Amino acid sequence: MLEKLKQEVLEANLLLPKHQLVTFTWGNVSGIDREQGLVVIKPSGIPYEELKAEDLVVVDLEGRIVEGDLRPSSDTPTHLALYKAFSQIGGVVHTHSPWATSWAQAGRPIPPLGTTHADYYYGEIPCTRSLTKEEIERAYELETGNVIIETFQNRAINPTAMPGVLVTGHAPFCWGKNAHQAVHNAVVLEEVAKMALQTYQLNLQVQEIDQFLLDKHYLRKHGVHAYYGQK
Amino acid sequence: MLEKLKQEVLEANLLLPKHQLVTFTWGNVSGIDREQGLVVIKPSGIPYEELKAEDLVVVDLEGRIVEGDLRPSSDTPTHLALYKAFSQIGGVVHTHSPWATSWAQAGRPIPPLGTTHADYYYGEIPCTRSLTKEEIERAYELETGNVIIETFQNRAINPTAMPGVLVTGHAPFCWGKNAHQAVHNAVVLEEVAKMALQTYQLNLQVQEIDQFLLDKHYLRKHGVHAYYGQK
Amino acid sequence: MLEKLKQEVLEANLLLPKHQLVTFTWGNVSGIDREQGLVVIKPSGIPYEELKAEDLVVVDLEGRIVEGDLRPSSDTPTHLALYKAFSQIGGVVHTHSPWATSWAQAGRPIPPLGTTHADYYYGEIPCTRSLTKEEIERAYELETGNVIIETFQNRAINPTAMPGVLVTGHAPFCWGKNAHQAVHNAVVLEEVAKMALQTYQLNLQVQEIDQFLLDKHYLRKHGVHAYYGQK
Amino acid sequence: MLEKLKQEVLEANLLLPKHQLVTFTWGNVSGIDREQGLVVIKPSGIPYEELKAEDLVVVDLEGRIVEGDLRPSSDTPTHLALYKAFSQIGGVVHTHSPWATSWAQAGRPIPPLGTTHADYYYGEIPCTRSLTKEEIERAYELETGNVIIETFQNRAINPTAMPGVLVTGHAPFCWGKNAHQAVHNAVVLEEVAKMALQTYQLNLQVQEIDQFLLDKHYLRKHGVHAYYGQK
Repeated sequence: MLEKLKQEVLEANLLLPKHQLVTFTWGNVSGIDREQGLVVIKPSGIPYEELKAEDLVVVDLEGRIVEGDLRPSSDTPTHLALYKAFSQIGGVVHTHSPWATSWAQAGRPIPPLGTTHADYYYGEIPCTRSLTKEEIERAYELETGNVIIETFQNRAINPTAMPGVLVTGHAPFCWGKNAHQAVHNAVVLEEVAKMALQTYQLNLQVQEIDQFLLDKHYLRKHGVHAYYGQK
Repeated sequence: MLEKLKQEVLEANLLLPKHQLVTFTWGNVSGIDREQGLVVIKPSGIPYEELKAEDLVVVDLEGRIVEGDLRPSSDTPTHLALYKAFSQIGGVVHTHSPWATSWAQAGRPIPPLGTTHADYYYGEIPCTRSLTKEEIERAYELETGNVIIETFQNRAINPTAMPGVLVTGHAPFCWGKNAHQAVHNAVVLEEVAKMALQTYQLNLQVQEIDQFLLDKHYLRKHGVHAYYGQK
Repeated sequence: MLEKLKQEVLEANLLLPKHQLVTFTWGNVSGIDREQGLVVIKPSGIPYEELKAEDLVVVDLEGRIVEGDLRPSSDTPTHLALYKAFSQIGGVVHTHSPWATSWAQAGRPIPPLGTTHADYYYGEIPCTRSLTKEEIERAYELETGNVIIETFQNRAINPTAMPGVLVTGHAPFCWGKNAHQAVHNAVVLEEVAKMALQTYQLNLQVQEIDQFLLDKHYLRKHGVHAYYGQK
Repeated sequence: MLEKLKQEVLEANLLLPKHQLVTFTWGNVSGIDREQGLVVIKPSGIPYEELKAEDLVVVDLEGRIVEGDLRPSSDTPTHLALYKAFSQIGGVVHTHSPWATSWAQAGRPIPPLGTTHADYYYGEIPCTRSLTKEEIERAYELETGNVIIETFQNRAINPTAMPGVLVTGHAPFCWGKNAHQAVHNAVVLEEVAKMALQTYQLNLQVQEIDQFLLDKHYLRKHGVHAYYGQK
């Protein structure tokens, strides 16, 4: 079942080592079939070089395994929470990519310091609060999803225009209209995180770019009047 | 038309991923035929691994497409403005290479801190002012070219001896006598930007190198009495 | 003799250049056969690209060569001391991997700043005291082992839950249930060391992650109720 | 003539891109035949990927071309000055490797902060004074050699135990008993420079390692009682 989606999710997972976003098995990508309400996700702890389409696990939105012999990624409840809360997204990715993870460990959101950021992330990339002891002990991976959702709801952030987040003390999650776009956004986040750290090393007082420059770059790529790329 | 120039511009574009100056499609190279007043430039948003000579777009100096089925790079008006203002240059390149972009985001020019810099850039590599709201909304890419030109004119900088610039909050543009030399200078800028940041980390009070050392290195490679390389 | 263990130790040694943990011959991996009390270790100063299983040296726990034509690694007495003191371990690795070595040179333990750390190292990664003149002149490599053991004993650290250490002014040693796991932990240490340095660059006041988050991540991978990976 | 030496010098030059010490043609290696008083050196500005043994230039110790159709490296007078002053050395290398060059640009010597440094460089790696206007205009490359020699003579540093130097505002030169060893030492310098910068980022008050640890590591590899490696 879902052979086409499995192929997409497989390819998206294999982009993680290609773009050097993962060490060992520290990452996972999923994709959703919205009509059937089914999610295809990487199995837990399987090396990328051995991963095959038939290893991918199909789960429903309550996390029940619908197909697959392997355990799904231990982060599956986080992915599912995001699919349920953010109805526009079609793919989710989690990595411990080192630059973005350093910001997450520092507990700092990444402000928009340049047009590279503005081309993909429409404003400051948020950083969640820490999880409480109760949340972690009750349902850690689910509550990781919940604290991301809370972050977006409290600040009225649109997940389509802000396709990623830093989970404090942990690492980033990104998403997109499909699995491939999610990984694309994870690559961008890593570049943006690296350059933002270096920018602060050069200028501790640096300010966010002007709102009109942020608007210009984000909207020339993503707005209704977008003119970047081919029609 | 312009088959030889297209081949040159194609090869110069492919040097960007080879030298790790670009992520995805974040860069573009053009070359000009001065006699015909025509510019060959990368199409917008096409991955480098798929790029072929016939995909390149030919535009005139007013930006009208003379040949090509694809949209030219969205940065085309910046390239054209530079060709019109800097009559000595034959190639232009734009990247978001991370070290140079970090300096651009920090809004800092790169002072000459060593002979690597002096071998190619004859003085401080300038950083433009920020664009105004009006400029961005009126004609963003054209005004990006204009603010570069303004920077060089206000400070009487010779673009032949200073083949690159940082656009504040954005990224670098470089140029050269042809497309290949433009990319060569972009590679140098990235190395120079990296080492300059590390130099400040080691010595916050570091001074620019002496003018006579700058002269020596620049002129042994580029002056009338140059003696670096083969005749 | 010990052909299977030699093959394992060979493969584990070859993972060092693969994971870019070594320059030239700056590293060595060993594995132990606990029943026979014999250790297989890399010969000293042999390039990885030339290393073959038959080059590996077999020594007993007193360091006597039992098989092999080459000298064992000069760090052999350190490995043996660790095998004798830490009865649970089956493999030991030493590298000068640059990020971890920078922490060792700085004489700083690495606090747990994120879940990547918590997934493998159950608490702060310790840093030994400096060796005294007497220790260095008497039996340097043996005393290096002894100061590691002293560090763990004085602070009642369990080497199974803390599979690595920084030797002040020198570099890291890691271990695991076998040679391959030891190298795995060395790769993790290098990633953790890199991200911890970058985290401090972003937030000098950053605190260790909460104990309950540390518990959660370590125990979901290593506890009796572990649920990461496949059964 | 000197075919064996040419082959050695060719291979040593090709190690520079292999170890990522050079961008474009920013480096050169030479080797000397002490009996004949002839030096084989890379030609100026020739890309490494095109370099062949027959391109190498043979010069005498006064810099006269004895064989070869190409111009020798513009840094030839520096190499020759080092060969004349340091009678024990058989190979010289110059690069702009980025970490070492950052220290040179910062004008800071690299103190011994760990055993990696001590394994190859027996003490602080010196940094020359700046050249004067007169020196630069009179005979820049020769005076670069002279200021290195002055640095070693003034401080009574033994070039055998200290096989490299940072030229302020410029970049490193290294040497060894032959061309290959010179490049080996250049690779080590780059690693040591990287780790020393990172060490200061972690601990601004870090002290040099103890003299007895420096002695131990240097002498176990290089002393009469060396026991590292094979006999």
